[in-house]
Amino acid sequence: MISKQMKQNIENSSAIRAMFLEGKAMAAEVGAENVYDFSLGNPMTPVPEAYNKAIIEAVQTESSLELHGYMDNAGYPETRQAVAEDLNQRFGTAFEGRHIVMTVGAAGALNVVFKTILDPGDEVLALAPYFGEYRGYVANHQGVLVEVAPDMATFQPDLADFRAKINEKTKAVILNNPVNPTGVTYSEGTIQKMAAVLEEKQKEYGKEIYLVSDEPYRELVYDGNETPFLTKYYDNTFVTYSFSKSLSIPGERIGYIAVCPQMEGCDLALGGLSVANRMLGFVNAPSLMQKALVKSLGAKTDVAYYDRNRKLLYDSLSGLGFTCTKPQGAFYLFVKSPDPDEKRFVETAKKYHILLVGGTTFSCPGYVRIAYCVSHEVIERSLPAFRKLAQEYQLGEQA
Amino acid sequence: MISKQMKQNIENSSAIRAMFLEGKAMAAEVGAENVYDFSLGNPMTPVPEAYNKAIIEAVQTESSLELHGYMDNAGYPETRQAVAEDLNQRFGTAFEGRHIVMTVGAAGALNVVFKTILDPGDEVLALAPYFGEYRGYVANHQGVLVEVAPDMATFQPDLADFRAKINEKTKAVILNNPVNPTGVTYSEGTIQKMAAVLEEKQKEYGKEIYLVSDEPYRELVYDGNETPFLTKYYDNTFVTYSFSKSLSIPGERIGYIAVCPQMEGCDLALGGLSVANRMLGFVNAPSLMQKALVKSLGAKTDVAYYDRNRKLLYDSLSGLGFTCTKPQGAFYLFVKSPDPDEKRFVETAKKYHILLVGGTTFSCPGYVRIAYCVSHEVIERSLPAFRKLAQEYQLGEQA
Repeated sequence: MISKQMKQNIENSSAIRAMFLEGKAMAAEVGAENVYDFSLGNPMTPVPEAYNKAIIEAVQTESSLELHGYMDNAGYPETRQAVAEDLNQRFGTAFEGRHIVMTVGAAGALNVVFKTILDPGDEVLALAPYFGEYRGYVANHQGVLVEVAPDMATFQPDLADFRAKINEKTKAVILNNPVNPTGVTYSEGTIQKMAAVLEEKQKEYGKEIYLVSDEPYRELVYDGNETPFLTKYYDNTFVTYSFSKSLSIPGERIGYIAVCPQMEGCDLALGGLSVANRMLGFVNAPSLMQKALVKSLGAKTDVAYYDRNRKLLYDSLSGLGFTCTKPQGAFYLFVKSPDPDEKRFVETAKKYHILLVGGTTFSCPGYVRIAYCVSHEVIERSLPAFRKLAQEYQLGEQA
Repeated sequence: MISKQMKQNIENSSAIRAMFLEGKAMAAEVGAENVYDFSLGNPMTPVPEAYNKAIIEAVQTESSLELHGYMDNAGYPETRQAVAEDLNQRFGTAFEGRHIVMTVGAAGALNVVFKTILDPGDEVLALAPYFGEYRGYVANHQGVLVEVAPDMATFQPDLADFRAKINEKTKAVILNNPVNPTGVTYSEGTIQKMAAVLEEKQKEYGKEIYLVSDEPYRELVYDGNETPFLTKYYDNTFVTYSFSKSLSIPGERIGYIAVCPQMEGCDLALGGLSVANRMLGFVNAPSLMQKALVKSLGAKTDVAYYDRNRKLLYDSLSGLGFTCTKPQGAFYLFVKSPDPDEKRFVETAKKYHILLVGGTTFSCPGYVRIAYCVSHEVIERSLPAFRKLAQEYQLGEQA
């Protein structure tokens, strides 16, 4: 028999699978164009042409043994150097290539970081609402995830609760910015206050507490917002990144870890990340993708595409009487469930062929997440369905 | 500070790193052409042209969002189907696409399997000598690796010891065929006997004991040898595979798990593998590589290239008086250390600019591994150095 824990994991996963199958059944019944699937965070904007050109050029010009071969577990030197220079240019940082470890996406990066820093029983704080996969990533390495409550008005972290949850077992804080599922970006002020608390607690307990920043949505910000680059605010920081969203290439599994050069024990941490990359079975980030990145790091996805969706959806649903958190980044809209039972609301929405994900998945019951990385037409076509849903809950009628 | 276990892991890894640096320093001093580096198992034969063509064709013809996008965690249906059909055609098996889970190489595959089946404290048998990375793969998932001694005359497993090491905690047996580091292939007879023991022990303990077959060298066999396909001999088998060696693409991290359709609880195991792929942060095997494989599964590397190296090295070293295990597969030659202290022998070989890996790494002290995945000229040039090394140990003089 498979492991007891995995049996439990399969049962927990089956809800997502069930929704996927339900969506397919719905599409077969009423036509795919009449199903409004907002459940998946799958990039929708075209892959930049520069990236595909870089792949073909690499295959046509590089030695195939070098191109598809092993390299240092941390990646090709030229890729690491290119990433460091790109960050330095954009954020005024001072990374060298050796501070960058190429990884199998951000999910791989987070597992490599946790493998490197966690002893059994170490606590990792996660700021609710948060991406549910963090639970598994921490558990994989025998850590204990501890939730920090949000300020429900702003979905910035509740700093009093943040401070209260730190103790002698706290080894790390995982921070997603911009945030999946709320679309909020943590402001510079929030980051500075969190960094100050962490500095104080490091002194109090005489040990490092690491900040692990998960930033796959870094470039997806709107209205001139910026995502603060965390190594500038706190030395003991690992920045994890994926090109999944910025280049629309989630299937390729390519990302990196940037280690703050001022981190206490930086070289030991870098050594650990390389070993962890190998030990966990990643070995290295896919080689051709590393080579292609060198020539297409400057490529950008079409943020305006998502912004157009964001505006239409936020304005329309707010207008219908839904209570929405205005997204500043990522491609998610977080909406208060008009039903006290969010799961029932998700079920009710299905009557109108709208597929949503309940906030419980993100440790924030009473809300739903709408992923607007869909075509603009899907949003337009969904609005009458949302109107009916609002009517069923008698929203907007008091206005 | 990073985790205690990782500090230990870094110290253990530093020997390999030290040898790498030593080799570089040696090359700077005496010239790269005078250093005979047999330490790395890095494929050397050209990448088949069909594979690079398939990559370019995929980039030029497929929708880029599909090509680089998310798919089911187990892989694209057409890739899984193509792998199943290829196996069925070659080995007379009856896999369907759903029995195949695409992975980030064989290292990823093994971690996914262990995550799926191991509860803390479960024991995994490994047949010494074995690839040292297995220790980490088992420890990652809180398993306990238990070594089975070899028959030192043949390097087939000692079946009495195999039987004796199985107890109520045994959850799996990991088996590498052909074997790194000995180059031996486990014969059909060995496999049948092991399967019979496992069947008996499953009945005795009333539980499944899984066979986990690690087969990256499956196609690298010589003299008409064949690698028995294990699902034909034992139902509770996971076959893990990597295209690293057969297509010379170790950097791309692409492989798969084939689950025996007759496995007890096959569907539950398949569900677990998908969840584990996601949870561990692999998410899925790199997407473009999956697409390219569909059109290049039939491509083969040039086994004759390695065979020529094998013959020259085996014949020459045997002629010099070294005691060598004749390799039947993979690209390794396992040689008895003429020095009772194998580590001193490795150091002595360095005087002649020969880089070897000591058998202790593979839990087999008193031997060294020579990786002959180097150019034929390197072997030719190394022979005078091996002659001096043999002379230093007064080998062949009694002949």
